Amino acid sequence: MIIMGIDPGIAILGFAIVSYEGNKFKVIHYGAITTTSNLPMPKRLNCIFSGLSELINEYRPDAFAIEELFFNKNVKTALTVAHARGVSILAASISNIPIFEYTPLQVKQAVVGYGRADKNQVQQMVRILLNLKEVPKPDDVADALAVAICHANSSNFSELFRL
Amino acid sequence: MIIMGIDPGIAILGFAIVSYEGNKFKVIHYGAITTTSNLPMPKRLNCIFSGLSELINEYRPDAFAIEELFFNKNVKTALTVAHARGVSILAASISNIPIFEYTPLQVKQAVVGYGRADKNQVQQMVRILLNLKEVPKPDDVADALAVAICHANSSNFSELFRL
Repeated sequence: MIIMGIDPGIAILGFAIVSYEGNKFKVIHYGAITTTSNLPMPKRLNCIFSGLSELINEYRPDAFAIEELFFNKNVKTALTVAHARGVSILAASISNIPIFEYTPLQVKQAVVGYGRADKNQVQQMVRILLNLKEVPKPDDVADALAVAICHANSSNFSELFRL
Repeated sequence: MIIMGIDPGIAILGFAIVSYEGNKFKVIHYGAITTTSNLPMPKRLNCIFSGLSELINEYRPDAFAIEELFFNKNVKTALTVAHARGVSILAASISNIPIFEYTPLQVKQAVVGYGRADKNQVQQMVRILLNLKEVPKPDDVADALAVAICHANSSNFSELFRL
């Protein structure tokens, strides 16, 4: 199964493409789609949509896993990110990729086994689970990898429960 | 000039296509794109995007005017609408239609001349300005027509100032 993990954002959108077969992870590709704040919002949304569409066409993931929005801090920022999240989901939806959403709590729980884990703990577990030499940067990329791991673990559980 | 006015929404998205030439309005088309809550969010976003893309291709507006989000009430609802607003803006952006945003206050000011006008006043002014027999329903359609009027008036002003 090829999983595409997404940490949604407008300035930096982290993405990860991970294969998960027989309880083993293999990192295929990861990175970030970045847009600068001097670009008007419609162009930024266009960049994110076309960037993700290209990745989806190239890697044909079996699942698209995206983090839910956390909006405790700044509602205005959350609304902007929601625009970017909308076009990200659309890119997967147009290509008929099954879409899954996970809360930050679910991601931490799945990766570290503890919902209140801090950023550093999550990043170190991502590094260990995916057998990477270093924690991928920026944070959004590590987060996208964590979302992909979360989906792999969740689908693992749902398969277990089906037995 | 052909103006497409949008009142963004996830269950009901109001749209209006209005021509504005020599200070005269002509209503070309209006309506709503509706999606039911039993559809998963990705499908709803897909419906909105493809519906708007078809309208844009058919009517080739010179301007795409969309209302900004008003989020005093419910942040969760506003975040959902922001997803729909993102894919709406994307549809115009992909077709290279110039995009304009107006706050609810700007729309009321432009249509009624008073930023605190109530819904009914706005709807009656929309009916009068566009020479319609009745107020179009649902409210989202009347709001989309109001956004189109707002853009016409704003571009009128910017033309005046250019003299």
